[in-house]
Amino acid sequence: MSGYNEENGDGMPVYATPEEAEAAFYAAFQYADIDAMMGVWDAGNAIICIHPMGMALRGRAAVEASWRQIFEGGGKLLFELECASRYRDERLAAHCVHENIRYGAQFDQRSLVIATNVYTLTENGWRMVLHHGSPGVVATVSDETRALH
Amino acid sequence: MSGYNEENGDGMPVYATPEEAEAAFYAAFQYADIDAMMGVWDAGNAIICIHPMGMALRGRAAVEASWRQIFEGGGKLLFELECASRYRDERLAAHCVHENIRYGAQFDQRSLVIATNVYTLTENGWRMVLHHGSPGVVATVSDETRALH
Repeated sequence: MSGYNEENGDGMPVYATPEEAEAAFYAAFQYADIDAMMGVWDAGNAIICIHPMGMALRGRAAVEASWRQIFEGGGKLLFELECASRYRDERLAAHCVHENIRYGAQFDQRSLVIATNVYTLTENGWRMVLHHGSPGVVATVSDETRALH
Repeated sequence: MSGYNEENGDGMPVYATPEEAEAAFYAAFQYADIDAMMGVWDAGNAIICIHPMGMALRGRAAVEASWRQIFEGGGKLLFELECASRYRDERLAAHCVHENIRYGAQFDQRSLVIATNVYTLTENGWRMVLHHGSPGVVATVSDETRALH
């Protein structure tokens, strides 16, 4: 955990708002930076990460292992984010975002992921406690509700 | 909107905790009760509902239309819920739950949905503002992270 402008004693960056934490999350994702990624997540073990079509991973060890695998295996991704909704309280925030992802050698392939991100205000600023990503589709209501639920 | 023990002036039930609102949400889902379902959701339009493999539906009209379609088309479902994690502030709460669903004529078919549910404290008690469901799988970390992200 180094290379940051440290703003507190533990070498972790401090995010003053959920929006700053979210920007850092997607920057770490885009640059496949595991230290930056894990610096965005809450330091405690009550964290949950759900990758699209994946199970709910609980705790820092499982979450970090999943990001390491993604970063080691994947090519570069470019994110365009679209905020769907934000909910905010004093110490808790939930955002729903559309991740418009471009990838491939020419960044000519596209994917949409819908993500719900939850952040909590810690003594070291806002940190992510939950990331829930799922495959996004462009569908009519009748299309999408053919599924079980 | 009737048939409830009304606890406030607008005929809507009042949920004293996010847990009560969540229980009401799954009861409405299980009994395919559209009035009860929409009574759980916040009365405002800043609500988001993402059904598994579906797009993000915004606002009460779109959310209600999706539940009507699900309730009209579907058979009876039985839910067993498993709490994965809960985050709570004064006026905002986020829950991650595993929905173990049994369905079919003999309830012998099973499905797992992972859901993130967000609730807000309104003047009429706790209401749902976001439901994000996605297909759950039993997978190893290596399986799940073969996906794009």
